Amino acid sequence: MENKLPETIYDVPTPCMLVDLNRVKANCQRMIDRCMTLGVELRPHMKTHKTIEGAILMTGGNKRKIAVSTLAEAEFYAENDFDDILFAHPLISQRLDRCVALANRLEVFHVMIDSRYALESLKQKTLNSGKKWSVLLEVDCGYGRSGVPWDDDEAVQLVKMAASSHNIIFRGLYTHCGDSYTSCTLDVAKRQQVQDNTTNRLIGLKDRIKREGIECKTVGCGSTPSCSKPTKDMSALTEFHPGNYIFYDVMQMTIGSCAIEEIAVKIATSVVSHKASVNMFLTDSGFASLGADGVSYINSQPSGFTVFPDHPELKLIGMSQELGKVQPIEGKLDLNKYPHGTRLFIHPWHSCDAAMMHPHYYVHSGEQIIGIWKPVRGW
Amino acid sequence: MENKLPETIYDVPTPCMLVDLNRVKANCQRMIDRCMTLGVELRPHMKTHKTIEGAILMTGGNKRKIAVSTLAEAEFYAENDFDDILFAHPLISQRLDRCVALANRLEVFHVMIDSRYALESLKQKTLNSGKKWSVLLEVDCGYGRSGVPWDDDEAVQLVKMAASSHNIIFRGLYTHCGDSYTSCTLDVAKRQQVQDNTTNRLIGLKDRIKREGIECKTVGCGSTPSCSKPTKDMSALTEFHPGNYIFYDVMQMTIGSCAIEEIAVKIATSVVSHKASVNMFLTDSGFASLGADGVSYINSQPSGFTVFPDHPELKLIGMSQELGKVQPIEGKLDLNKYPHGTRLFIHPWHSCDAAMMHPHYYVHSGEQIIGIWKPVRGW
Repeated sequence: MENKLPETIYDVPTPCMLVDLNRVKANCQRMIDRCMTLGVELRPHMKTHKTIEGAILMTGGNKRKIAVSTLAEAEFYAENDFDDILFAHPLISQRLDRCVALANRLEVFHVMIDSRYALESLKQKTLNSGKKWSVLLEVDCGYGRSGVPWDDDEAVQLVKMAASSHNIIFRGLYTHCGDSYTSCTLDVAKRQQVQDNTTNRLIGLKDRIKREGIECKTVGCGSTPSCSKPTKDMSALTEFHPGNYIFYDVMQMTIGSCAIEEIAVKIATSVVSHKASVNMFLTDSGFASLGADGVSYINSQPSGFTVFPDHPELKLIGMSQELGKVQPIEGKLDLNKYPHGTRLFIHPWHSCDAAMMHPHYYVHSGEQIIGIWKPVRGW
Repeated sequence: MENKLPETIYDVPTPCMLVDLNRVKANCQRMIDRCMTLGVELRPHMKTHKTIEGAILMTGGNKRKIAVSTLAEAEFYAENDFDDILFAHPLISQRLDRCVALANRLEVFHVMIDSRYALESLKQKTLNSGKKWSVLLEVDCGYGRSGVPWDDDEAVQLVKMAASSHNIIFRGLYTHCGDSYTSCTLDVAKRQQVQDNTTNRLIGLKDRIKREGIECKTVGCGSTPSCSKPTKDMSALTEFHPGNYIFYDVMQMTIGSCAIEEIAVKIATSVVSHKASVNMFLTDSGFASLGADGVSYINSQPSGFTVFPDHPELKLIGMSQELGKVQPIEGKLDLNKYPHGTRLFIHPWHSCDAAMMHPHYYVHSGEQIIGIWKPVRGW
């Protein structure tokens, strides 16, 4: 199948994942330009697509400065000549040997700490002669997930201990402002408040650290909603690390991060069964190809939690493993309009999850299939 | 990693999927024995595990009589000397060429129809000399998904047309009683009612077909809840085709299909971050390794929608891609009991979805890792 490409998006086998290369390029370039304008460096996150081709576009071709969510990604990119890689996941000692190999191999490999435990683990691991660990403090600016709370004295204490360690270069601060997703509804004021709070808390911590005589070269913040619509305050940061924006999705559209025309992925699916008795037809795209994340938003808007871009009259009302249930948003379904085998396209709720379900993505320009991208999997 | 096996379930890298071989064997044997006792044939469904090793155990070693949800599975099993394979998905003409190859290659390859469209597609495709399509009618006995409604005259009409086609052998009836999941709550009476309704509707249709002079050799019904706890009436059926029972999961336990001691899969995860400020710790198992299906049941029971078998005091309260948020079911968390790196195990809500997230499964007997199973992926 991989040897001979299908000609068009109407010829790909269903279900499959389609990546719109022109939209991807535009999404990537827009983020590069935005960061340039703000005077902020961009360290794109790879977790959404996990491919070489996507990473090249996100880094503007220079293959430097990326963030990853797994060591499998880090190793995959290292093997493919990427460098300056940040492992953006809380560190545990079980993963240290692989981190040592990456740190020794790469020019720069960054890790994060959010505890004395992680710091001590690093201090006990020696790198090749002359090399030191490049360490960021992970900060929780109110999202409530990983990281040291921004207002906790422990944040400054940890930085002092890191900066004075013989085998560590303290690099700066990292935060993920996941609260910018604000319950997946469009609430611009609330999102901007989150972004400003996050920024000010991070800058405040940087200043407290500076009073101890320690410089944060990097003050980085991520999340696609905040980096797609940055507030003025955010130019005080040095680095953005969003990831999802390469593809965007219905969730991001719902939040207001993107327009529907910027969503660069869709699942190609076929009508496989007619159920006039329940005003429905079935497609061959269930959660095995669309991903299940977001199902709880299935009634959040008229079209459900996904969008059929060419058929705004349709709503995905449920999924099993390999079947999707589709009804009209209102009225009686005219099944003659959707014969068996009809090709439909679906923008997924969460492209990070949908992409994970696929061994490869078909890449298209307009209707033409022009390539296949193969993501790395596992951990 | 695959070359040298980790020694025990405490040495596997996290996150990963663990398969308890002894439980799998017991689950498989119990279903084989149950079918034997009822005088019903077993055609296990492969969609949950998608491995050769699991299929051998489910078929009692004879590699015959299986159901699959994708053609990728059908081709994978055909290449590995399995035969008598049922493609249990609504047929569309785009998939016919691959079906022809399977039908020509295998001794028996069954397909399902639920429309004149599907029937006509088959009639137009000739198999190798002497071969005929083996066709089942997919029936909807009230679940409301694919299949012709049991009480629709079209069911009998389709069978008559199929039985009189020159290149078709009409084999019988197939239904998936997905309504036996009864909103994922334990409601034994309601489930039994669904099972009896399904059975009686299917047998009623079989009798109506017989009055037309056509025999249904196969009258098959599936779903793990109904086949794990069959009612007496179900012995009137000729074939069961459940799939999930090889692994079971928290959803099946909640419905009453299995005991917790029969759940044969768990995700191995590590404590990666402490968050005393929000009475929580984080693990490295998010929806990328646990699957997102079932998140809407996250508050359905005290332990959430997953179970920590060795730590009944814990609850998974949320997931992002690579992080799980864990709190105590009640009271204040003593983080000293869960140091960084602590190995935990989680039974997933839906093992079909969780398994799909993993490139391979580590198989263990007691605490010893004894092998790796590699599932087929794609469509």
